[in-house]
Amino acid sequence: MDAEILCIGSELLHGDIVNTNARYISKKLAEIAINVHYQTVVGDNADRIKKAFDIGFSRADIVICTGGLGPTQDDITKETLAEYFGVEMIYDEESYQHVVNMYQRFRRSVPKNNIKQAYFPKGSIILNNPNGTANGCIYRGKDKEGNYKIGILLPGPPKEMEPLMDSEVIPYLKEFSSWVVYGEKILVMNIGEAAAEEMVIDLIKEQTNPTIAPFASAGKVVFRVTAKAESKEKCIELIKPLKEELINRFGKENAYAVSSGKVEDKVAELLLDKNLTIAVAESLTGGLVASKLVSYPGISESFLEGFITYSNESKIKTLKVKEETLKKYGAVSEETAKEMAYGAAKVAGADIGLSTTGVAGPSGGSKEKPVGLVYVCVYYNGKYELKEIHATGVRDTIRERAATRVIDLVRTCVEE
Amino acid sequence: MDAEILCIGSELLHGDIVNTNARYISKKLAEIAINVHYQTVVGDNADRIKKAFDIGFSRADIVICTGGLGPTQDDITKETLAEYFGVEMIYDEESYQHVVNMYQRFRRSVPKNNIKQAYFPKGSIILNNPNGTANGCIYRGKDKEGNYKIGILLPGPPKEMEPLMDSEVIPYLKEFSSWVVYGEKILVMNIGEAAAEEMVIDLIKEQTNPTIAPFASAGKVVFRVTAKAESKEKCIELIKPLKEELINRFGKENAYAVSSGKVEDKVAELLLDKNLTIAVAESLTGGLVASKLVSYPGISESFLEGFITYSNESKIKTLKVKEETLKKYGAVSEETAKEMAYGAAKVAGADIGLSTTGVAGPSGGSKEKPVGLVYVCVYYNGKYELKEIHATGVRDTIRERAATRVIDLVRTCVEE
Repeated sequence: MDAEILCIGSELLHGDIVNTNARYISKKLAEIAINVHYQTVVGDNADRIKKAFDIGFSRADIVICTGGLGPTQDDITKETLAEYFGVEMIYDEESYQHVVNMYQRFRRSVPKNNIKQAYFPKGSIILNNPNGTANGCIYRGKDKEGNYKIGILLPGPPKEMEPLMDSEVIPYLKEFSSWVVYGEKILVMNIGEAAAEEMVIDLIKEQTNPTIAPFASAGKVVFRVTAKAESKEKCIELIKPLKEELINRFGKENAYAVSSGKVEDKVAELLLDKNLTIAVAESLTGGLVASKLVSYPGISESFLEGFITYSNESKIKTLKVKEETLKKYGAVSEETAKEMAYGAAKVAGADIGLSTTGVAGPSGGSKEKPVGLVYVCVYYNGKYELKEIHATGVRDTIRERAATRVIDLVRTCVEE
Repeated sequence: MDAEILCIGSELLHGDIVNTNARYISKKLAEIAINVHYQTVVGDNADRIKKAFDIGFSRADIVICTGGLGPTQDDITKETLAEYFGVEMIYDEESYQHVVNMYQRFRRSVPKNNIKQAYFPKGSIILNNPNGTANGCIYRGKDKEGNYKIGILLPGPPKEMEPLMDSEVIPYLKEFSSWVVYGEKILVMNIGEAAAEEMVIDLIKEQTNPTIAPFASAGKVVFRVTAKAESKEKCIELIKPLKEELINRFGKENAYAVSSGKVEDKVAELLLDKNLTIAVAESLTGGLVASKLVSYPGISESFLEGFITYSNESKIKTLKVKEETLKKYGAVSEETAKEMAYGAAKVAGADIGLSTTGVAGPSGGSKEKPVGLVYVCVYYNGKYELKEIHATGVRDTIRERAATRVIDLVRTCVEE
């Protein structure tokens, strides 16, 4: 079965927001082995929505549409679907009560327009939206050539769309697919994207099932290995040898599997597993390292304290960095990075201390210490592990890169 | 002139990555008043790319395409464009030298396939890509009905595509548009999206030029006001009365203009402007508040220090929160929030101290203190400003919401 995703929203066409709906739906469909060949975005324009439906159903079995379920005259997705299948719109009392209840929550009376939200193509399965007034629907019927087609209409806001996709749409579509698709992510550090790809180009070229796809982001490369089989267990079995081969090629010190593709999740797991505590001292990253670690639920067992010591004074006062060190080598130096990491561990009483210091830009760079120069350091077990990084990109990219690299450095130290 | 955006990449259809290219291009085109009516995503499939080009040119004057400029057999965007316009592909020696130079940088020899990257539709303007081997191109020619159409091919990786869009494509397309589009953002705090929209629904309904578009994200609502005119100055003039009306309706304490739409930028500007220093004490946000403030270039003048005091011990030791307070009221309480904010200011010697403490979940909630309960506090000038927040959503949304709210609270205190 093939699906097409149709997102309605002028804010997408104006570039105000990124289309996370298309990504979310694609990802969920991939997991149940439904192929997506096209994603389309159109504005709130009746004529263009109609044409997009026609094109969508001409090349896919399923069209999943987000947006256009509101109460205004512009919201015509349901009407367009009814017209496509040649069915009438009928009133659903429960959906109207749903709108009334939603308004009552905010102690407001229901505007007249909202009755529109209680009408659906006759024969639809109605999808009850717990997070908004707009219920969605699924309609399955025959097109003009007599082929079965499925139209699925979901609300536009991600916090309304995503729960409906998970709880209603995926279970419904699963019935039409007897395959499972399952993927794992291999994270590669210390090797650039082009070089990493070249190291496994033969594996990428001969891929069929599982498939391998690399993608890069600040400071890391992720290889997604995906298999399609009759069960998740069978997928895992297919993935295993390829996963091991990839890790062997890149080296265990550089590559590892982590389901989210996030370095911080791997490190948080490691710290909790080994009962190690950590404290962080950040300069240019300014809380980014801590924030990443803290995003892991349960990390409070391991994460003791963070110090964002942006000024020299705070480095001296809070972390006990020597004034002499700052004078002699400067804030952006190996020596300062080491004393910061040591200071963080000692002040917080943690097993591990890490630090970041560097020039994030856009100003503040010099010939000796240009924008992008970063030192990161991990203190653990009486030893220092230090890295000098020359990062490219804008301020936030440099900060992101530094944060990812120092978190991975914790992994290296702890695994050793 | 109308444009359509066509993004090629299987990783988009699998939901591995979000389509930031479509957003970037849309935003840039909006600024020069070129309308985008469709965005389409297709995979690396020759047949489907051909069809997408046909559909694109049938409904738009310009098709801007990203991806498919690589050296492999799958990369057929240039060939497809040449076929559409009925021109041959010709060899460009400079582009080949560009590929050679790129490989030499990494001390590698050029694979045979890469010669493909030196071929372009005859008559193209070639776009030199400083960040990758794949040069892009612009081709302008007549379609079968004799109408002029423009095809623009750009590399897929954002760090290669974005600079070419800025330096080559926008100046080229500007020649075809005599209009300027300029927008400003009004940030609205303390009012929900639906309520905010209702407060200005009459303005939204009667909009023509400027237009008003609301969009919501964690903890805030942004209204984009956009005008189209012959110059930027004229746009600013058109926007001014509407901007003032919006701010008046929401109240100055809740609404203000900030070009990036980010609370932290407004607060950073305020702090630097008033020569005020700040220190932050974070529990559940774990560095997120500091990281947001630090993303503002030049903030080091104002941001003195951050303390991520996740554990009770660190709250006592680092921020001098009273043990008694923690025992009697708990870490998530008004009293602890106040002592944390005061402690941050005092320890760092800053004018302003802020704090966050709450239950981010997914576990750790209780009947009295459920997941989502957050206290944020700002200490300034001997006074405390405190907010109790009941945030919904997942762990990271709750943290995001708390961070946005406390940063805005700084604005309220400083402006008073």
